[in-house]
Amino acid sequence: MLAYYNGKILLLEKIQISPFDRGLLFGDSIYEVIRCYNGKIFLFDAHLKRLKESLRKTNIPEPDLSNLENVISELLKQNKLINDFAAAYIQITRGNQFPRRHAYDDSITPNIFIYVEAFPPKYDEFTKGIKAGLEEDIRWMRCDIKSTLLLPNVLSQRKAKDEGYSEIIWYRNGIITEGTHTNIFFVKDGVVITPSLNNFILPGITRKQVLNICSDNQIATDERSISINEVYSFDEIFITSTINEITPVVEFDGKLINRGVPGEITGILQKEYQKLYV
Amino acid sequence: MLAYYNGKILLLEKIQISPFDRGLLFGDSIYEVIRCYNGKIFLFDAHLKRLKESLRKTNIPEPDLSNLENVISELLKQNKLINDFAAAYIQITRGNQFPRRHAYDDSITPNIFIYVEAFPPKYDEFTKGIKAGLEEDIRWMRCDIKSTLLLPNVLSQRKAKDEGYSEIIWYRNGIITEGTHTNIFFVKDGVVITPSLNNFILPGITRKQVLNICSDNQIATDERSISINEVYSFDEIFITSTINEITPVVEFDGKLINRGVPGEITGILQKEYQKLYV
Repeated sequence: MLAYYNGKILLLEKIQISPFDRGLLFGDSIYEVIRCYNGKIFLFDAHLKRLKESLRKTNIPEPDLSNLENVISELLKQNKLINDFAAAYIQITRGNQFPRRHAYDDSITPNIFIYVEAFPPKYDEFTKGIKAGLEEDIRWMRCDIKSTLLLPNVLSQRKAKDEGYSEIIWYRNGIITEGTHTNIFFVKDGVVITPSLNNFILPGITRKQVLNICSDNQIATDERSISINEVYSFDEIFITSTINEITPVVEFDGKLINRGVPGEITGILQKEYQKLYV
Repeated sequence: MLAYYNGKILLLEKIQISPFDRGLLFGDSIYEVIRCYNGKIFLFDAHLKRLKESLRKTNIPEPDLSNLENVISELLKQNKLINDFAAAYIQITRGNQFPRRHAYDDSITPNIFIYVEAFPPKYDEFTKGIKAGLEEDIRWMRCDIKSTLLLPNVLSQRKAKDEGYSEIIWYRNGIITEGTHTNIFFVKDGVVITPSLNNFILPGITRKQVLNICSDNQIATDERSISINEVYSFDEIFITSTINEITPVVEFDGKLINRGVPGEITGILQKEYQKLYV
């Protein structure tokens, strides 16, 4: 497999990260995951914009990203993934610094790693829906930054797997935030409801697409604070992400949603979303 | 320089980390820093115990650590640091996993990286004291784990540097927690006061030593919740860590403490602490 590191496309095994990479030592790094449908890099501009936002918010100097789309295209070609559903992973760390000190030097340059992999759509989950659990959100208070501080996500995802859930939805101070790697939506009386953007949730790119689709299709939306006390009263629940697209939640915290089948509005949104890339 | 990686002592440049090391991708890793005084590995057992606690709390499988002390000794010898003040850094990540997925496989084995460096004592700070700033604690809620989720520490440390502070002390919901890489102590009417241990602070090894020294020297201590409203009313303030030992804070959030000079009890504790390793 060929991947990209700091200006070069190399065999994955040839890519060597320094033990003094601040991403490794401090979680001093940010990332993006971009969907690639048959060689088409989906919503690239939105991902690039968020990547730059993450760099700005962490004060990591912005490297030259003008060839990023080309690099992903080249990786898809060279890895023979232009006729597949694939995912591109991009990670930018602040760079290498020796010796290890918390405060960063301005002189260091960021490291950029990119790899692509075949990633088939999760049709089974799209059609049948998933089970999701509910847990307290113990992450830091800047979840609007797509940083690699993902240990809480890792621990919750593993717990999800062990308990038969596909996703864990978090709440903080009794208010729903998001999933370990998805945003969450609810439907009530025909209105599509999702937590408002703030420092506790990621401004999801699929989330934004869903709101746009609603707007284009005269479906009312409401971005607001959602209490854990009201989650069982919703007609439909679904989660969104680059990879999970729009996935119905048919069981939430042990309770059936919409009698255990994907909801009608969720289905309409899925169809409209798929039109964007087919 | 020679360092250790997964069973071997190598030239630092020969150590190659995989881009699929989960420490790099997810902050899925823990660490320790141990002080070495003239070849003597200080409080090794306490650090080993905490390292094992961090592994247990993150569910990272405990690798064979029976030769850890020997490895550090060997690194000190081979790097000619047995007559110096040095620091040993130990990081254990959950291991390499391809492709990148949040949930971890049980089949992967942890990666262990160890390096040592000369690290002279900060005599100037011990004697004259430091200035510390005050900021909101935005970290995750398991700061009792010595994980590498250190981006908030990095950002605060950098801000400290820019503003002429040596350390930033954090508070959460109006309650003092700790510094970016230190625990904090206050003195009032001869009583040594420090935040109680909970999930918001690291159980510092130097912190514990200070409490032991107080006990041995009939100095009263009080581990309790400390409000930001009372911090300016204290007679003395000091911070503790493996590297910073006991460092007086003579200016806190722009206000002079003890008229800007290190306090008397702080001085007594420093002398007693130094006796432990001289």
